[in-house]
Amino acid sequence: MRLGLHEARSLAVQALVRAGAGDAMAASTADALVEAEAQGLSSHGLSRIGQYAAHLRNGRADGSAVAAVVRSRGGALLVDARCGLAFPACALAVAEAIARAGEFGVSLAGVTNSHHFGVAAHHLVPVARSGMVGLAFGNSPAAMPAAGGKRPIFGTNPIAAVFPRRAGAPLVIDLSLSEVARGKVMVAAKQGKPIPLGWALDREGRPTTDAQAALDGSMLPMGGSKGAMLALVVELLACALTGAAMGFEADSFFVDEGNRPRIGQAFLVIDPAALAGGDAYYARVDALVAVMLADDGVRLPGARRDALAEAALRDGIEIPDALGAQLRKLAGG
Amino acid sequence: MRLGLHEARSLAVQALVRAGAGDAMAASTADALVEAEAQGLSSHGLSRIGQYAAHLRNGRADGSAVAAVVRSRGGALLVDARCGLAFPACALAVAEAIARAGEFGVSLAGVTNSHHFGVAAHHLVPVARSGMVGLAFGNSPAAMPAAGGKRPIFGTNPIAAVFPRRAGAPLVIDLSLSEVARGKVMVAAKQGKPIPLGWALDREGRPTTDAQAALDGSMLPMGGSKGAMLALVVELLACALTGAAMGFEADSFFVDEGNRPRIGQAFLVIDPAALAGGDAYYARVDALVAVMLADDGVRLPGARRDALAEAALRDGIEIPDALGAQLRKLAGG
Repeated sequence: MRLGLHEARSLAVQALVRAGAGDAMAASTADALVEAEAQGLSSHGLSRIGQYAAHLRNGRADGSAVAAVVRSRGGALLVDARCGLAFPACALAVAEAIARAGEFGVSLAGVTNSHHFGVAAHHLVPVARSGMVGLAFGNSPAAMPAAGGKRPIFGTNPIAAVFPRRAGAPLVIDLSLSEVARGKVMVAAKQGKPIPLGWALDREGRPTTDAQAALDGSMLPMGGSKGAMLALVVELLACALTGAAMGFEADSFFVDEGNRPRIGQAFLVIDPAALAGGDAYYARVDALVAVMLADDGVRLPGARRDALAEAALRDGIEIPDALGAQLRKLAGG
Repeated sequence: MRLGLHEARSLAVQALVRAGAGDAMAASTADALVEAEAQGLSSHGLSRIGQYAAHLRNGRADGSAVAAVVRSRGGALLVDARCGLAFPACALAVAEAIARAGEFGVSLAGVTNSHHFGVAAHHLVPVARSGMVGLAFGNSPAAMPAAGGKRPIFGTNPIAAVFPRRAGAPLVIDLSLSEVARGKVMVAAKQGKPIPLGWALDREGRPTTDAQAALDGSMLPMGGSKGAMLALVVELLACALTGAAMGFEADSFFVDEGNRPRIGQAFLVIDPAALAGGDAYYARVDALVAVMLADDGVRLPGARRDALAEAALRDGIEIPDALGAQLRKLAGG
């Protein structure tokens, strides 16, 4: 079925409020999920409403939580999400980081006691609008082994970055550190098809082509041990610096019951004016973009999402009928 | 032949001074190269002395350059390496970043007009000694295409990180973003052996198993397009923020003639005390390390290098006779 963005947002807000989210938490969460859906990222879109609503109802997320800055020094600060949904806490962290990067040149905002933060790059939209460079790091429930290991320890631990341009949309990089998304393995398992070697390990830590065995085991990091090392870096930035829970301490987001995940996020914001200066920064970005676009087949990162979002603004979004029905039911319609 | 570390360092200093490096530049460069050799990283060790000496003689590096902080605001600063060898400029940037992270919680130090900075993680040793978390990013002459592209645009763009522990050596992560080091392709080419698909493209941008064609083409990033996206992030952090040259603007380090590379580096330093606090940080790191070590086959990153360095301190280092002879000749012995 097709939904207009406004209607989708209203349904999402109502569903979250009925599940116990405060108005501000429901609004920022709905905005993020509708934006993801509009950009074609349906795995982080409206399909998450049912999951978040269940977490709110089961106490895995506290709908009445109000995130707050609990510690700061100069450019560094820590936001406590207080076990609410992640979006208001991340928005507060990023807004503070932008202000502090303006004053101190660079800022790092950590978020602790947090929850699933959706599409990592979305949190950086206000950073690019402020003419600043931003990076985002988050951990997630354990899915991948350490280098050389057999058991899931790290999450798929997304990394995102935005780089504003003088003219044109910012460059937006956004990736998780698994070789492939777990969703691809789930599709193969449903269809009874094998998966390529290199995607996953089984429960005993052996490489597998059996999709169901992979779901019971662990996903492999991109690029082998290098990807595992990057996942370790993200885990430490997002959790050790913030005092948050590690991936192996958080129950899966994909089940309704479980603990409060208490995972962490970290946002780095840098004002180019404090280093080479804004003019030099923009000139360097333009030079690189020109060389990239001169190579056939290279597309600027973020361009596809932007095009889909523009189309969705005009045409609305297409979602499965079952998801539409679930949304209306959760919204009390 | 076997050399004691002290003797190796003396030869390196003499060789660099004879090629035109000032005493301080020669000393910090020699320290870094001997440290790399001692840690088993011979591609970034004494074999570089001949290359650096040629660059100094040919004006690709200015031996009389004195690096300086040319701009700063709060936690952010820019160091101009003034086209000298990179090591004194990086040391200055990191020392400033540690001091500023102590004051402002977080610091980002960029380096512009720089040169090859060797083993990225080495610059972070003083960061870990100060009880702080550090990240290092550097670009290098173009070797890898952008996602979907056919021509080398990005360097292999190393990322390093250090995380101090309450007890025990810091966790040290250090990787370049190519699927494999170019040295492996050079070895295959010399032996006339094929390389696996996925390592490199030929000059026309086609996947190749021909090692010589790969050397004339480009290396592939780790993890496919995700690795290319990370290389883009590093290129922009190390060059756009600092006003440095992009990888495609810098001539190869492996030739004696060429331009001043003027590439860039960026160092991020974070004081855990400004976020969750030192006790919480150390406790979280210990919890993660315990789980990693409980999984058979997992080795802490940095442990192998530490063990080799300890052995080298006792036994000296083993280098090819030809390299030893070259070193003595360059040192005027």
